[in-house]
Amino acid sequence: MDEATIRARVSAARVAHLATVTVEGEPHVVPCCYVLAGETIWSAVDGKPKSTLALRRLDNLRAHPMASLLVDHYEEDWGELWWVRIDGSARVLTDGAEREEALDRLAEKYVQYESRRPPGPVIAITATVWRAWP
Amino acid sequence: MDEATIRARVSAARVAHLATVTVEGEPHVVPCCYVLAGETIWSAVDGKPKSTLALRRLDNLRAHPMASLLVDHYEEDWGELWWVRIDGSARVLTDGAEREEALDRLAEKYVQYESRRPPGPVIAITATVWRAWP
Repeated sequence: MDEATIRARVSAARVAHLATVTVEGEPHVVPCCYVLAGETIWSAVDGKPKSTLALRRLDNLRAHPMASLLVDHYEEDWGELWWVRIDGSARVLTDGAEREEALDRLAEKYVQYESRRPPGPVIAITATVWRAWP
Repeated sequence: MDEATIRARVSAARVAHLATVTVEGEPHVVPCCYVLAGETIWSAVDGKPKSTLALRRLDNLRAHPMASLLVDHYEEDWGELWWVRIDGSARVLTDGAEREEALDRLAEKYVQYESRRPPGPVIAITATVWRAWP
């Protein structure tokens, strides 16, 4: 998969899977919406009730900043499968200009965010390793 | 989400996302096909070339047996989103009766496996915690 295809697929996909490591050193994975901007991926903790579950990824990243974000495509013709994985370190943005810019970009990608701008923190992942298959 | 719905959704879904922790303590996530049998989830390392990438999850699980498997549904109507996450400890089966049973069950679920039975190890996750949203 060439670099242009990788970026186009990551930009266009609607959902990714974010893996983090818990404070106890165990794996954790959640689906997330996100937007790609250069080498940064932004993802909001959206408007769902602020349960322990919703905040777990933030606790994880504060303890272990490394994040692994997977964008993949499944269909029954396995010749058409592909995935892109981006590893990097994550910051949790609770306020400030970068968080506002991230929310603007997320609302451009997801009309769903236009009417309900996420009130919570934004996760900013700085991509350090890109891997793609095939 | 009630227990019957959780099990039905996990049984029916075609792809899941498996998060593990690397030897270095970093998060790792791959898409995988799988089959649910009671409290066990089996997933094969399929017939792709045995690259470092394909075997990474096995190295991870041998070092850190905890696994987190996410089954989720995305659509543009966010009122219809759901996910189920199963945490548990994983074993790597390189041969033996359980591996054969797992491959039989995987071939029942995925016609794609009938013509190419996976030659590699099978991951067996024993579910200890089930979480579902909403």
